[in-house]
Amino acid sequence: MPLDFINGCVDMAHGSGGRASSELIHELFLPAFDNPILREMNDQATLSIESKRIVMATDSHVVSPLFFPGGDIGSLAVYGTVNDVSMSGARPLYLSVGFILEEGFALSALKKIVDSMELAAEKCGIYIVTGDTKVVERGHGDGCYINTTGIGSLADCLHLSPTKIQCGDKIIISGTIGDHGTTILAQRQHLNLSTELHSDSQPLHDLVKSMVETVPEIRYMRDPTRGGLAAILNELTQSCGYAIQIDETRLPIKEEVKACAELLGLDPLYIANEGKLIAFCPKDKANRLLNTMKQHPRGREAAIIGEVTQSTTTIVEMQTSFGGKRIVDWRYSDPLPRIC
Amino acid sequence: MPLDFINGCVDMAHGSGGRASSELIHELFLPAFDNPILREMNDQATLSIESKRIVMATDSHVVSPLFFPGGDIGSLAVYGTVNDVSMSGARPLYLSVGFILEEGFALSALKKIVDSMELAAEKCGIYIVTGDTKVVERGHGDGCYINTTGIGSLADCLHLSPTKIQCGDKIIISGTIGDHGTTILAQRQHLNLSTELHSDSQPLHDLVKSMVETVPEIRYMRDPTRGGLAAILNELTQSCGYAIQIDETRLPIKEEVKACAELLGLDPLYIANEGKLIAFCPKDKANRLLNTMKQHPRGREAAIIGEVTQSTTTIVEMQTSFGGKRIVDWRYSDPLPRIC
Repeated sequence: MPLDFINGCVDMAHGSGGRASSELIHELFLPAFDNPILREMNDQATLSIESKRIVMATDSHVVSPLFFPGGDIGSLAVYGTVNDVSMSGARPLYLSVGFILEEGFALSALKKIVDSMELAAEKCGIYIVTGDTKVVERGHGDGCYINTTGIGSLADCLHLSPTKIQCGDKIIISGTIGDHGTTILAQRQHLNLSTELHSDSQPLHDLVKSMVETVPEIRYMRDPTRGGLAAILNELTQSCGYAIQIDETRLPIKEEVKACAELLGLDPLYIANEGKLIAFCPKDKANRLLNTMKQHPRGREAAIIGEVTQSTTTIVEMQTSFGGKRIVDWRYSDPLPRIC
Repeated sequence: MPLDFINGCVDMAHGSGGRASSELIHELFLPAFDNPILREMNDQATLSIESKRIVMATDSHVVSPLFFPGGDIGSLAVYGTVNDVSMSGARPLYLSVGFILEEGFALSALKKIVDSMELAAEKCGIYIVTGDTKVVERGHGDGCYINTTGIGSLADCLHLSPTKIQCGDKIIISGTIGDHGTTILAQRQHLNLSTELHSDSQPLHDLVKSMVETVPEIRYMRDPTRGGLAAILNELTQSCGYAIQIDETRLPIKEEVKACAELLGLDPLYIANEGKLIAFCPKDKANRLLNTMKQHPRGREAAIIGEVTQSTTTIVEMQTSFGGKRIVDWRYSDPLPRIC
């Protein structure tokens, strides 16, 4: 009897390794993720990679709600790891997927998530090559958690690292901040803001490709996800030993994000993004890099937002729109749990 | 203030990407898993692999209870993925780790798990190179779930696959069956059997190394975890298109496992193993392979348990100890959920 993708639910048997597990694999995962490597149907994937420099990144996704304007946990799990691999300058190639499903989770929702992952993988030009599914009892999960681990190949000439950051380097962001976190929170609070608010969840591998091709001297790239721009910049001051100065008037923020954040008492600087990156690059290459980014559909609103400065303390300081200065502190926690 | 590893608990902040997350990384994960790649402290790991053939495997671990005789979720998560990579004949090299922690989980238990992973990784000669931690609210997890994804390098001469299996091939198991599942269930039922019952959770990479070096003609290897030997053999009859015949009298089963399984009404054939493998090999190489395995500490009780036969149906048949024959059916589910 085929799986009932309309009214059926995940039960403990689907994680048992028995016939039910096999049915789930053959009726859902294999047709969706179909590719020559997965078709081998081994318990592991054998891949052929020409480069000797391999990049590996992992992320578990526990976002709540599972579906939101602009994306869902499936596409987020693919793009999230693709982006983490890409930030090294590498070309993402392969992804593994591990599901932790809660007993009673609707098979229709699972199918929607898997279909979304398929589409996302296709957009990124990668293969989902191996996977695993576990089922936990009701009350020990939250529908669906997804781990993705990605590997990619890295060109010999690229060596991006926070330790490469130097005083005077410019900091470029690829677009607006706060879109993802604000969308999730509005959704969670059932705010009907009737705005165009939606997550910025998107893959950045092709933007990165054109960036490193034009300016291979980029020192470091990072996607400001959990904790937002503020957390990443603070973390980086610790790694590089310099201070960072940013300019509030240059931060690209959508009007609807600004409005919603204000309503919720949040600061977009601390709100997660899922389709943006920041790049540190030598001063004399900054305009060239900025122009390259602006020509790319995923970098159209790119802006130079600040620079690396010498200071006795490793702080992040912001020139405010009123002409003053304030310290962008590193918070202990994020106001928004389970954002990704 | 340093983390309190005696009385402290995981809270939502530890998964926020803020300062609390950074503290957890710097006070727990970095010192435990310390290696040159992890020390780079990037959001992804850059690895150098000589081989062009890479093997990738992933597993999420949700075992309950987290600690059991012979192991814990930490060592299980390392060995489980190391073994999945090894079954291809590859040499495991690197592991990523993704934690999903439940709010309120004791930091002392987390430390115990992380220390166990460190020791396990050392035993396997692998590096844990990148990771991720998410925290979910109380009642949306079960203390600690761990995804591990492993990559390894595969020699050019090895091409193990279930499609290589041929009629007449011998099936060898590396040791006793049912140890892991029986231990977990006895623990879960609070059975105080005062026996020597303990999980067989162990790494198999070095046993595999000596096997493929001696008999590179091995057709296929697999570790019979969830669903036990019965599930794996049934799955393989489907992939290779032959039938399988096994001999009950040749199955190595510990007396205490037999007794406990009988008490619980379970059949060791269907019970999970976490440190055993089966190998399919050409008939004329079987004794050579068996001897190699028996000389290895992790294969001392290896035995030829059956062979691949021609049949009109792809079934698994067992010659019973009473001289009869019975079909080893493929069950819909596993009687033991959350075994790994």
